Amino acid sequence: MPLKRFDRPIILGMVGDSASGKTTLAAGVARILGEDRVATICTDDYHRYSRSERAENGLSALDPRANYIDILEQDLARLRQGKPILKPVYSHDTGDLVAPEYIAPKPYIIVEGLLGYTTRAMRDCYDVKTYLEPDEDLRVDWKIQRDTAKRGYTREAVLASLEKRAADSPAFIHPQRIFADIVIQFRRPEGQTAESGARLDVRHILRPTLPHPNLAPLVDAGAKNELSLDLARDHDGKPVDVLGIAGSITDQRAAALQNLLWDLIPEASHLRANVGEFTNAENEQVVSHPLALTQLLIAYHMVKAALGIHAI
Amino acid sequence: MPLKRFDRPIILGMVGDSASGKTTLAAGVARILGEDRVATICTDDYHRYSRSERAENGLSALDPRANYIDILEQDLARLRQGKPILKPVYSHDTGDLVAPEYIAPKPYIIVEGLLGYTTRAMRDCYDVKTYLEPDEDLRVDWKIQRDTAKRGYTREAVLASLEKRAADSPAFIHPQRIFADIVIQFRRPEGQTAESGARLDVRHILRPTLPHPNLAPLVDAGAKNELSLDLARDHDGKPVDVLGIAGSITDQRAAALQNLLWDLIPEASHLRANVGEFTNAENEQVVSHPLALTQLLIAYHMVKAALGIHAI
Repeated sequence: MPLKRFDRPIILGMVGDSASGKTTLAAGVARILGEDRVATICTDDYHRYSRSERAENGLSALDPRANYIDILEQDLARLRQGKPILKPVYSHDTGDLVAPEYIAPKPYIIVEGLLGYTTRAMRDCYDVKTYLEPDEDLRVDWKIQRDTAKRGYTREAVLASLEKRAADSPAFIHPQRIFADIVIQFRRPEGQTAESGARLDVRHILRPTLPHPNLAPLVDAGAKNELSLDLARDHDGKPVDVLGIAGSITDQRAAALQNLLWDLIPEASHLRANVGEFTNAENEQVVSHPLALTQLLIAYHMVKAALGIHAI
Repeated sequence: MPLKRFDRPIILGMVGDSASGKTTLAAGVARILGEDRVATICTDDYHRYSRSERAENGLSALDPRANYIDILEQDLARLRQGKPILKPVYSHDTGDLVAPEYIAPKPYIIVEGLLGYTTRAMRDCYDVKTYLEPDEDLRVDWKIQRDTAKRGYTREAVLASLEKRAADSPAFIHPQRIFADIVIQFRRPEGQTAESGARLDVRHILRPTLPHPNLAPLVDAGAKNELSLDLARDHDGKPVDVLGIAGSITDQRAAALQNLLWDLIPEASHLRANVGEFTNAENEQVVSHPLALTQLLIAYHMVKAALGIHAI
């Protein structure tokens, strides 16, 4: 790792509600950083109870009491020290707790899940903290799509589960948003209703807790409806930058934004080869510039952290 | 815990070859210290491979490479700090790795298994280190008895396993003996061949790495063939004390030794009630004074460690 200034792994947090796009985004960031240099941990594996036990005790998987939060805290601290962990494993297929998995330290670690920022001890472990907050109707569509296709639920069961969890998300998931350096909001463009991944817009709410790249030159020169950067107040009244990337952004402008980011991290130029994989990924029928650029912006922060720039 | 001087748990190591009596001895020590104040960890749970995987890769369960030694090191360090662990679980019934188990810290922790003293980092975690070394013919009898009764093997399979492991014990288990404060040798009395638990003698090889109680007054007063304490040289030529307790020791002399030990730890007098349980344990048809006194001597050192006496 010629570009690593630190011996310890650089840790990315990716927190958000169920089906908010964490796995997809994490996989894209890992592709850029190099899959062999990244370990991805899912906090769902720290569930304390099997699905049937939760049905009995009435606890939602979103509830910290239904998770080994203290063990997760310790494992994150171990990973940050570059030590291996024996991560528990929750099988989404069967709903059972199964044999744990040995995770060797890697230069980059992505921690994605429902409960990544619950305690101070956990939050202190991250170099970059993101929070995924897609529009709620989009998230519901994503959840139905995934849970019926990959986890064997019926559409009715998914809707019932959403209903049952209605109180848990505001109680346990949403309060973590405030700890994120970047809140990422995928949304359908104004007036569009049917889902179309390629057409989604994205907004990044950038908190001044990370030194974000200076995008002003690009934005000033560009069509405001493709790329925007605006000073705004967040829900809580705090000042933030809001970066907007429209699904309709042209290939040229997307490439210009990519170039700008790479120019800011010349030490990582050997990673540029990995970005092409967005367009070649077999499971993606359409290229999404907002998704690709979001992945790249996060990877940019990880590389900067590895270089020790954020620490200066 | 009025008698605890330290906030951290006091940790006892109990290492020895397969079927050397670890589980029985650990259970007896736990009864004395109070079962609700003791967590017992078996290092077999840190097996890296299932039984069928080991059959394929040819590694013995005794081989450190077939165990998560680095995870065990870290878990011991966590326990010593009074932190909980999520211990992996190996099922001796099925030979499979299964869902891990949450272990909350307790005032006393007993770590028993094949590989407790393999690395310096592990050894540094213990307050009291014991090593079990019964006579080999006795151990073979114990192993056949246990593995056919409790683990579903045939006698032939057990003998084949012993044969297969013949090289592994000297390679991986025996080298740990040197790190023990006390080496415990159960053996049949001279000339006796059929096994009889009640009649077994025991020898404790006492290394000067722990402040052993002064037993001289008792030994001087007693029949030399019931209780003995002799200066000797260990295998490696190092000077040691050898405490001998004969299976034929009288109830009176055994009681005198018990009294002497309790008088040395008056702070723990409330634990004396637990000792009576030796004689009442439903699974023991016969009282073994050597076993009971061995358990008590180990418990004595644990209480001393809790009082901080050893640290002075």
